Amino acid sequence: MKFGILGSGMVGRGIAAKLVEQGNDVMIGTRDVDALMASTASDFMGNPPFPVWHAQNSGVKVGSFAETAAHSEVLFNATNGYGSLPALSQAGESNLNGKLLIDISNPLDFSQGMPPTMFISNTDSLGEQIQRTYPRVKVVKSLNTLTAALMVNPGLLADGDHTIFVSGNDSDAKAQTTEILKSFGWHDIIDLGDITTARGTEMLVALWLRLLGVLQTPMFSFKVVR
Amino acid sequence: MKFGILGSGMVGRGIAAKLVEQGNDVMIGTRDVDALMASTASDFMGNPPFPVWHAQNSGVKVGSFAETAAHSEVLFNATNGYGSLPALSQAGESNLNGKLLIDISNPLDFSQGMPPTMFISNTDSLGEQIQRTYPRVKVVKSLNTLTAALMVNPGLLADGDHTIFVSGNDSDAKAQTTEILKSFGWHDIIDLGDITTARGTEMLVALWLRLLGVLQTPMFSFKVVR
Repeated sequence: MKFGILGSGMVGRGIAAKLVEQGNDVMIGTRDVDALMASTASDFMGNPPFPVWHAQNSGVKVGSFAETAAHSEVLFNATNGYGSLPALSQAGESNLNGKLLIDISNPLDFSQGMPPTMFISNTDSLGEQIQRTYPRVKVVKSLNTLTAALMVNPGLLADGDHTIFVSGNDSDAKAQTTEILKSFGWHDIIDLGDITTARGTEMLVALWLRLLGVLQTPMFSFKVVR
Repeated sequence: MKFGILGSGMVGRGIAAKLVEQGNDVMIGTRDVDALMASTASDFMGNPPFPVWHAQNSGVKVGSFAETAAHSEVLFNATNGYGSLPALSQAGESNLNGKLLIDISNPLDFSQGMPPTMFISNTDSLGEQIQRTYPRVKVVKSLNTLTAALMVNPGLLADGDHTIFVSGNDSDAKAQTTEILKSFGWHDIIDLGDITTARGTEMLVALWLRLLGVLQTPMFSFKVVR
């Protein structure tokens, strides 16, 4: 299947590598391909520059946001929160319409220091903003409640005995997302309802950030015990 | 030990009954004792009027907010979010100062329909507002992430294998809260840090509310898997 990943950070890389491993045709989209392929600096988390990663993951194609959206049957939004709407704008509505967009982004605002606050919350969510902006895209919020390594390999923690959520307006799109999540190893998947329920998982990130500070590792996740 | 519970709803009743069962001297505080003891209507959740409950829990004293605060060594804030600062004002700063106040309230705004939004979140929390308003009270946010029945009996769910959080500025107050939580049956207790971390657990309620809609029962809780 043809997948596109908007965003070349750790989330995008992790998703892309997993999808290639599964035998899919995968393109990572970025704002400026030349700049990305020329980058030499590690990011603030110590992750290697993209070309270093790409040398070990050469099966992943790299293109502009528009090329990536045009390439793909299913898209992941793995940009940072502020970059999401600009990236989708560059991707182009005609390249996005009718497609499933699995939205992993969180509306984090780092301008007030650490831990970040959120630039949308409570009465709205980034998932909803994306859905409103692109009404013909099938937006499903998921995977935004844990660290990149666990998204595509939940079994790294407690044999996968933790919970992942999906929010979206389109039942078929949520069913397709659920199949993708199962292929990643998820077995406790809760459909929260329509895209407005993305408020719940985006706001969960406020607790996630405090737990990161206390636990001193991102290798944790939430289980809904019931 | 002498405990006071501000608020006579299901949360206050559940905490009070448990503390009496443990042999403590417990008073529930309310705005208008005569009105509470004369109430005959069930609440919107179908819970019985206070006098019906009190007839079966006659070991619990009932007083004004001020009487309850004066009575107590340790207080629980079990009022609804909008009622918290007014209740504390009526309790009186001199009756509160120097005491541990375990704050269970959530800043829920029902004015926009269901599910409620929050009237404080993201860059502030109700726990912080209370602490700022009463700087000499030892505010510890806890127990605000699950339904009343599970607060004092976590073993009703998965043998208690789920997580409770504490947030507060005073280490001794958090240690005392932790002992109280252990006496309720909690064994996975995470200290998130200072009172600003109450933002994390208060915002978690946004997800809790959506899960209530999906699971159709409040008998669920969160476990931090790590």
